[in-house]
This record gives sequence, C-alpha cells and structure tokens, in this order.
Amino acid sequence: MMNFSKTFPYLVSGILLSLSLFSVGQPPRGPLVISPQVHPDKKVTFRYLSSFAKDVKLSAQFLKSPVAMTKDTNGIWSVTVGPVKPDIYPYSFQVDGITVMDPANVEFFPNERFKASLVDIPGFTPLIHAMRDVPHGAITYEYYPSVEGSTGSVVVYTPPGYDKDNAKKYPVFYLISGTTDTEETFYKVGRINFILDNLIAEGKAVPMIVVMPYGNPMARIAEQTGKAKPGDIMMRDGEDAINRAKLFENDLITKLVPYVEKNYRAISQNEKRAIGGFSRGGGQTLRTAFGNMDKFSWICCYSAYLSTPEMEGSFKSLLENPVRTNNDLKLLWVSVGVEDFLYPQTAEFLNYLRSKSIGYKSMITDGGHTWMNVKTFLAETVQLLFK
Amino acid sequence: MMNFSKTFPYLVSGILLSLSLFSVGQPPRGPLVISPQVHPDKKVTFRYLSSFAKDVKLSAQFLKSPVAMTKDTNGIWSVTVGPVKPDIYPYSFQVDGITVMDPANVEFFPNERFKASLVDIPGFTPLIHAMRDVPHGAITYEYYPSVEGSTGSVVVYTPPGYDKDNAKKYPVFYLISGTTDTEETFYKVGRINFILDNLIAEGKAVPMIVVMPYGNPMARIAEQTGKAKPGDIMMRDGEDAINRAKLFENDLITKLVPYVEKNYRAISQNEKRAIGGFSRGGGQTLRTAFGNMDKFSWICCYSAYLSTPEMEGSFKSLLENPVRTNNDLKLLWVSVGVEDFLYPQTAEFLNYLRSKSIGYKSMITDGGHTWMNVKTFLAETVQLLFK
Repeated sequence: MMNFSKTFPYLVSGILLSLSLFSVGQPPRGPLVISPQVHPDKKVTFRYLSSFAKDVKLSAQFLKSPVAMTKDTNGIWSVTVGPVKPDIYPYSFQVDGITVMDPANVEFFPNERFKASLVDIPGFTPLIHAMRDVPHGAITYEYYPSVEGSTGSVVVYTPPGYDKDNAKKYPVFYLISGTTDTEETFYKVGRINFILDNLIAEGKAVPMIVVMPYGNPMARIAEQTGKAKPGDIMMRDGEDAINRAKLFENDLITKLVPYVEKNYRAISQNEKRAIGGFSRGGGQTLRTAFGNMDKFSWICCYSAYLSTPEMEGSFKSLLENPVRTNNDLKLLWVSVGVEDFLYPQTAEFLNYLRSKSIGYKSMITDGGHTWMNVKTFLAETVQLLFK
Repeated sequence: MMNFSKTFPYLVSGILLSLSLFSVGQPPRGPLVISPQVHPDKKVTFRYLSSFAKDVKLSAQFLKSPVAMTKDTNGIWSVTVGPVKPDIYPYSFQVDGITVMDPANVEFFPNERFKASLVDIPGFTPLIHAMRDVPHGAITYEYYPSVEGSTGSVVVYTPPGYDKDNAKKYPVFYLISGTTDTEETFYKVGRINFILDNLIAEGKAVPMIVVMPYGNPMARIAEQTGKAKPGDIMMRDGEDAINRAKLFENDLITKLVPYVEKNYRAISQNEKRAIGGFSRGGGQTLRTAFGNMDKFSWICCYSAYLSTPEMEGSFKSLLENPVRTNNDLKLLWVSVGVEDFLYPQTAEFLNYLRSKSIGYKSMITDGGHTWMNVKTFLAETVQLLFK
C-alpha cells in the first residue's frame, strides 16, 4: 500500500508552505487562502492572510478608490465586490499602507516599477481575449544581437499552424509596450496571443507574426555592461530623450527587423510590416514609422501622440505632400480613452493631422490609460492589418 | 526644435511613475529607487521607499536571518550586505512584518504562493547560468490539448540553430518543477536556457529540446471549468494524492509527449527521452519513469525520493530484475543538498536502491531545498544526457 502522507510529508497541509516561505524569510503560515475568487454573478472575493495587520484595503483598476477589507477569526482579510464588468484588471492590496501583490495569485503584471496582480473576470460568453477552444499560436522568447554589442530580448507570437507549412510566409506586426512595461506585457497583460488566435479562427484577422521588443535598450545596455541602470522612467532632459528614442529606432530598424526576417518566415516588404504601440511605445511607433516610411505601411498608435513642433521639425516632408503620404500609408490609426490623461493632446494631434489632410482612423473609448483599453484597441486594429 | 518635455510631459521626472502607481491605487511616489545594486566587490545594496514604515528588513536566501534596513532623509530604506557568493537568489522585504517584492526590480520568482524578487550576482568570470556571448536557443510558451478536455500550458526550450536545419531531429528532456512553482520556473529561475546555450557552445552538452510542463493539471482543470481551484498545495489524503499523481502522468504520457513529438523535431525513442524534476517534480519524475520504462531511459531526480513502501508496492518488477532495470536505464541520477529537509529520506532512498542493486549516480552538495542547488544539478546532468 502506498502511504503518501509518509512518502511526501512535505506535501501535507501547510508544512511545505511554511518551508517555502521560510526559505525567503517569511514566517510560517496557517490556512490556505483562495484569492481572487470570481463568482458566477461576476462578483469577486479577494482574500489576504495577516493576523497582525491593522488595516487592509483592496485597490483595483475597476474601483474608483480602495475599499476596506475585513478580518475573520482565522486572520483572513476579505472583501467581495461587484458585479464587475468582465475584463482583466490589475489590483493589489494596501496592507497598513504598504502595497503588496496577492500572494495567492500567480497572475501578475510584468512591470519594472509597480507590482500588481491580475484578476481575469470571464464574460458570460467568452471575451475576445479569452482562451477559447481554437487552434493556438505560440509565444517565443528570443535573444538577438542588439545595438552596441548588447543582447536584446524580444517576445514573438507565431500564429496557429506556423510550424506546419514551411513554405508559407507571414506579415509582421511590431508591437511596443509603454514606459516601465517589458517585452512580456503585451503577452501577459495584453493577451495578444489569444486575441489573434480567436480572430484568426473567426476569419477576421490575417495570420501574422507579432514581434514585441523591449522599449528601453539604453537601460538594457547599461545593465549588461555592469553599469548602474540609468533612471529608466525619467527622460531627464531633451538630449537624453532624443538619444533614447534614436537608440530604440536604431535597434528596431538595423538589428531586430533583419533578425526577424532572417529567422522567421516573414515577408520583407513595407506593405507586410505594421508597427504599433501603447503610451511611450505609441510615441516610438509614430517616430519610427514616420522616419522610415519605406519600412512600414501600417501604423497603430494607442494612447499617444506627437506634438505639432515635433511633427513640423522632424517630419516636414510627410506634411508637404499629404497625397503621397496617404498613398504610402495603408493605415494610420490613433485611439485613446476620454479619461486618458493624454486625451487632450491626442485629440489635438488628430485635429492637426486633419488640418494637414493626413488621413487616419481613430477610435475614442471610455476609460483611461489602461490595458483594458489596449486590448480593445488591439482587437480592433489587428482586424484591419494586411488587408 | 523638438521639445520633449512638452511632447511627453508624462515622461518627465516622477509624473508617469505617480500615474502608473495611482492607476493601481498606490499613492504618488517621490525619488527613483535603484534596487538591487550589485557592486564590483559582490556586495549588494537593497533599497525600498517608504516614508511611513516603522521597520524594514531584508530577507534573502543568502542570509541566515533577515537583516535590518535603515531609512535616509528621503524615506529610502537601504542595507548593503555581502560580499555574497555569485548566484541568483530569491529575496523580499519585510515591511512592518509584511512581505513585499522589491518594487524597483522586474526580476521575479514565478510561484503560486510566495512572492519573491530575484537578485543576480554575476561571477568574476561568467557563471554557467549567465547570458554569455554564444548562440542562443529560444523559449516557447505553448498551449496544447490536455486531459479532460482542458488546455495545457507548457514552456519549451529549443537549442541554438533549431530553426536552421529542417531535417535535424533532437532528443527531448522533460523537466518538471516543484509544488507551487509553475511551468515558467525552470526558465525564469533555473535559467535552463542559458545553462544549455553555454554547455552546448562548449561542446559539453548535446543539443536537446527541453519540455517544461505545469505540474498540477488538477488545479488547471478546476480553473478552466470554472470551479474553485482546489487546495493546490495540500494533498489532503492518500487518494487525492494518488489521483493527482496519476493525472499528471496521464497528461504527460498520453497528451504532452505525443504533442511534442508531432509539433517539434523530436526523436520518438526511449533512449532519446529524458525526464527530470525538482521536489514534487522529482517524485513525479520517479513515478512516471518507473511506470513507463519503455518511454524514458534517462532519469534525473533533484531533491526528491520515493519511499520503500511505494517502491515495493508500485515498482516491484523493476526490483526483481535489477540487471534488466540497469540495462534499460542509461541514467538514474539522484542529487540533494545536505541542508535539504529531504536529505535524510533521499539518503535512505539511495541506500535502498543500492541494497536492491539498482545502479544510480548521485551528487550531494552543500545547501538546501533551493534553486541555487537546482541550477547546479541541472548543469551537471545535462552534460550526461543522450551520450
């Protein structure tokens, strides 16, 4: 007879948990905490274990402000909120004023500065970013030779069936995340893979490769050469900002695009290359696309813009001949939420484009500078690309 | 003239940071915190910003117990420790007794229960898990049709040059992580990709595919069918434990191995299949291998064992004919650290194998039930496989 509780004493209630936590310096813990728990009516219960905390709150992007949690006799703090509109939301706990991720939840928001967990509230019918029973593409983490002798990291989506037909070639969508996000964010938070799997299965999107670079090569180079990573959030002055923007563009154009076109079955043709991005990545998208009109025919700018002085200083030739510009571009997309702190500037950018007779498509949504909006923008734009 | 501080007001000092954090409910923050900072002499400075915390400590797997941090006039708590032996270590902060990851550090330990950051202290010459200037393999996240109609997730390493020669086929190493770890842990913490890149470049390891499944399909099935995830740490009784172990084995043998051999250029032959794992994954390795001797010829067990009752109850036929067993197995590897809480049982398991004339290789190291030891075991064993 097998006796598992003898065989694996460390798998018995609580003991392994204590050991694991002890190994990173935490005190042993008691009861198992289930969090988050999404109920069928789309209410959600969040739980956090602490016998000694004095005040625990839930912060979440579906809440206007943090809500108090209450403690039971086991020391488990909890709150049930909602119903919440189905989507994926970042959240965290405020424990005596200190921000912590949910220890019971493995889903997280990859970011260089803030630490947040993710709660996925499924739709009554599966949302466009849900894992559905359709053929799945794959996500690949690659290392490539980047600028200044550094090694770049990039995440690549290949569509379902990519490995089946060695003759077929695909268009490529370069997709750049925002400040403090990483090359993982469009996968882990944006769910680009499931959005494309679903839209391809419905015949609404063309099978494509999606290439997601890291947006801050200056920080990566510093790290790899053993220097202290520079202030990776702040562009302290104009010169630094220009150097960073140029470095990113150089990396993309001279290193990453050639690497992708050598190592993937990518079509090397401007009409089969798209570029898009969110926030800082949206600005990088516009600069890189406008500065390399021979490389990209499709532009997707999410929650970002360029100022009139920059447009007139750096991209005058595009404005002088709008007929040619409109002819060269298959798509110039700009979208933003009305609660986005960049809404006014983005609206001004759209007005400016219109005044210069540059054609564009736009989408104005509810909501702010969030990845809920990014997923909406993604699902809309990938249906337009390469058609 | 470009004026970036006008163009991107949100990229100017601190403002974006405040906004990002505000969006998940954190208060605006002040100075930029650099943490961790590894110095040339292998001392390391850790920093954490909190103006109102009363007590902040550093917990790390290179420390015997947490050490106090001190606050400067900006509200930044810090401590410099070491020199620390070069390696990758999990750590966290204890802020007024609450465990938090380092907000300034993007490197994390993927785990379903505890939340820890990772500090990478490079060697004076690059360690075997360091990213060196050698050809790199790729890591792919795949979704595959798993047991009970669920969709499984798996992480796959393909060696450098995999995409270059469409005729070449490779041996496969199935590698299973421990309780509460995920399919990402051997990549993000174990650095299996860089270990293999480096050993392949040195001619010390055979190019191979490494397949890293998620170890707890029962929890995944519950999640996908909308049920509350079962207690994913505890095996509450023997029957539950047996069901879980069987479910994992069924998934691996009937779903994952066929999927890999259909979708990758894998050699379908027991002498070209290895299986290995850490902790719970080591137990799953031994059970799956001993129960499917026609499938796997190479076994790598890290910090785990099977009890004598289970060996005699479930795997009697292996013991009755040790000559045949030894002939069938190209490698039976068992390694453990002397400080590992499973050391006594593992040593007993080795004694038992010896008493039954079952051949094995073992490695006893310093240290405990840690991923520092896992990397050591990995680097040793991949040099033995498929030779």
